[in-house]
Amino acid sequence: MACDLKAEIISVGTEILLGNIVNTNAAFLAEECASLGISVFYQTTVGDNRERLLESMKLAAGRADLLIITGGLGPTEDDLTKETAAEYFGVPLVEDPHTKERIKLFFQRLGRSKIAENNWKQALVPQGASVLDNPNGSAPGLILEKDGCVMILLPGPPEELVSLWKSAVLSYLQKKQNGVIRSRIVKVCGIGESDAEMLIKDLIRDQTNPTIATYAKTGEVHLRITASADSEEEAFSLTDKMVARLGERFGSNIYTSSRDVTLEMAFVDLLRKKGYSLTTAESCSGGMLAGRIINVPGASDVYDRGFITYSNKAKEDLLDVSGETLSKYGAVSYETAYEMACGAARNAEADVAIAVTGVAGPGGGTAEKPVGLVYIGVFVVGHVKAFECHFPGDRTKIRAYTVARALTLARAEIMALSD
Amino acid sequence: MACDLKAEIISVGTEILLGNIVNTNAAFLAEECASLGISVFYQTTVGDNRERLLESMKLAAGRADLLIITGGLGPTEDDLTKETAAEYFGVPLVEDPHTKERIKLFFQRLGRSKIAENNWKQALVPQGASVLDNPNGSAPGLILEKDGCVMILLPGPPEELVSLWKSAVLSYLQKKQNGVIRSRIVKVCGIGESDAEMLIKDLIRDQTNPTIATYAKTGEVHLRITASADSEEEAFSLTDKMVARLGERFGSNIYTSSRDVTLEMAFVDLLRKKGYSLTTAESCSGGMLAGRIINVPGASDVYDRGFITYSNKAKEDLLDVSGETLSKYGAVSYETAYEMACGAARNAEADVAIAVTGVAGPGGGTAEKPVGLVYIGVFVVGHVKAFECHFPGDRTKIRAYTVARALTLARAEIMALSD
Repeated sequence: MACDLKAEIISVGTEILLGNIVNTNAAFLAEECASLGISVFYQTTVGDNRERLLESMKLAAGRADLLIITGGLGPTEDDLTKETAAEYFGVPLVEDPHTKERIKLFFQRLGRSKIAENNWKQALVPQGASVLDNPNGSAPGLILEKDGCVMILLPGPPEELVSLWKSAVLSYLQKKQNGVIRSRIVKVCGIGESDAEMLIKDLIRDQTNPTIATYAKTGEVHLRITASADSEEEAFSLTDKMVARLGERFGSNIYTSSRDVTLEMAFVDLLRKKGYSLTTAESCSGGMLAGRIINVPGASDVYDRGFITYSNKAKEDLLDVSGETLSKYGAVSYETAYEMACGAARNAEADVAIAVTGVAGPGGGTAEKPVGLVYIGVFVVGHVKAFECHFPGDRTKIRAYTVARALTLARAEIMALSD
Repeated sequence: MACDLKAEIISVGTEILLGNIVNTNAAFLAEECASLGISVFYQTTVGDNRERLLESMKLAAGRADLLIITGGLGPTEDDLTKETAAEYFGVPLVEDPHTKERIKLFFQRLGRSKIAENNWKQALVPQGASVLDNPNGSAPGLILEKDGCVMILLPGPPEELVSLWKSAVLSYLQKKQNGVIRSRIVKVCGIGESDAEMLIKDLIRDQTNPTIATYAKTGEVHLRITASADSEEEAFSLTDKMVARLGERFGSNIYTSSRDVTLEMAFVDLLRKKGYSLTTAESCSGGMLAGRIINVPGASDVYDRGFITYSNKAKEDLLDVSGETLSKYGAVSYETAYEMACGAARNAEADVAIAVTGVAGPGGGTAEKPVGLVYIGVFVVGHVKAFECHFPGDRTKIRAYTVARALTLARAEIMALSD
């Protein structure tokens, strides 16, 4: 490996120690480090406690070159990560005028004329620290360096941590590396993790540069290709060749080979390219499918309106599903999903309609129609199909899988019609 | 403190270190320990590596009475948690005939006639260990005790860990406790974390039994009250008194003092009690509000249908918002939110309607109507109001805050009308 940086991840927060929240930050940071070729041998969680945090910093600094510490940067008295880091490095906290101004603007933008006094604490930074502007919160990120030890302090809220990482930390770490390590992500839908692994078993086993790792996501599998080289050009040449090989194996199951593109983004993009408009009709997913599509900036190019039809009557009123179909086959049926898709397309005057009806549980399941049974109807310019699906897990999980599958099926139908 | 047991949680697994999986086991175990009044000061994650695991065991044993170690108990060569524990305690591994028999039966039950040879490794246990039968897997749980140090080894797959915990570990630990510690959670909406802390600054500072800690959630604050006593009755008496004191401070901002109740559950419950039906009309939140409401089992008692009206035309067609209002005030305006709420209530024949229209970004913002500006309209049995809100963060965050605020505002309006 061209890069031999060792990192440790320290998560600070009593709410993690008490199990109030699941530590997704550690997983995000671990994956990011892996993609940079940075080894992580230990992850530690400590509470908002000066003494124990200081102990953890000392221990980690003795084992690693790089300490990534999250949480405890907020305005409350509990938050003392910055104070402890300053103590570790033997420097005082000083006010950073730039951050003070940014905090003022941040609260102004929120429309708050009165800023609680304790927020100003977030403008205090350890002397000599590099300040990373937080676009999504008041606490800045901080980088401290001394005697070969680098400490990166990041806020605990995941959206603040992720955006700071992408906007500032990533490029900083890339510069720190001895060689060049670059990763690409190929994202696959419509195939499970085991099947995906079987398809590329030989590549996973034999490849050492680039390496391939699979990550199971809800309804998707992400394949990470990591190459090590002397130059960025060379590294990307290695990853690009592997992207092409994966293309041969997975074909149209690959919806993107761009890290920042989500399934819904790829889907909206496909509709835009085809010039298709989209609508949705949701029962058990109750707005989650539309919510995911509308999370794509610019979704208004293709999406105009959608229907949430939770009751039978709503399905009749808004989607013209026939009462006979509902009484004969039930709300959760192939026939109802089919008619929902047709009615939604007609009433929204859309080229593409996705309809969802299912049993999300925990109640409502029967031997014939168990919890997890979902029908997805897809209308594409007059061509209609409905699909029977079975999903595991609880209500939240079933609904999340449903939305991912609905996007995957609609994407496949549109692509099949284009061939 | 009546109970002074200190525990550490060690998660073993390279897949966690690489960020392939999120460590939900640690959160489960931490919450279980918290509810038992067992202090957890550190959580550590290490890979499947003998040397580093042994180091972690030594370090943890020096700081805690109880080590809960998960993962690395399986049949493969990588799995070496048990071997390392035996080394730490200085005992050999010996075959446990009872476990060997159980493994045989376990595979028989799965319908497998041939059992892969490496599975018998799971019948080897450190000499003197208590064996905990695993109802959902082949690897047993193990308890080792020596010189006041207790080590509990549990398998990594969450469903095996949870079932073993509930069937065997919980009762073992309850017997180990000297006193009783109980927690309650009070959940507050409509007030920020800083303001919430200011309101109970004296309680946070002065109270040692029960203690209070605040946790910021999106659009909510959770307050955890933890009391220590000689009996369960006494502990709950202490927490209940504090719940009452918090009630005096936060009033109707408290939406529940039950750990398992979410804001949307409390909201659906309020509607059910009032006998009100609900509908939603969403522009920028695009189904997320409905999605969150419908995630409540039994939401169909109050929710029948909802509208996603992303374009102006959809607002006119489905909600009867007047073209004049849209052209004069714009889609993101007090007036439009007001008319959306009225139209949704009328067209869905609902008692309560929540309407959302805003600029979620990243595009579409202007000096007059910046990204993060959201109007929320609330209709309650003929009484209508609209609210101007400003939210920070990216598109996802703005939409998540919007949904939480919409629930909070609708809840407040319904309650205000009942007074």
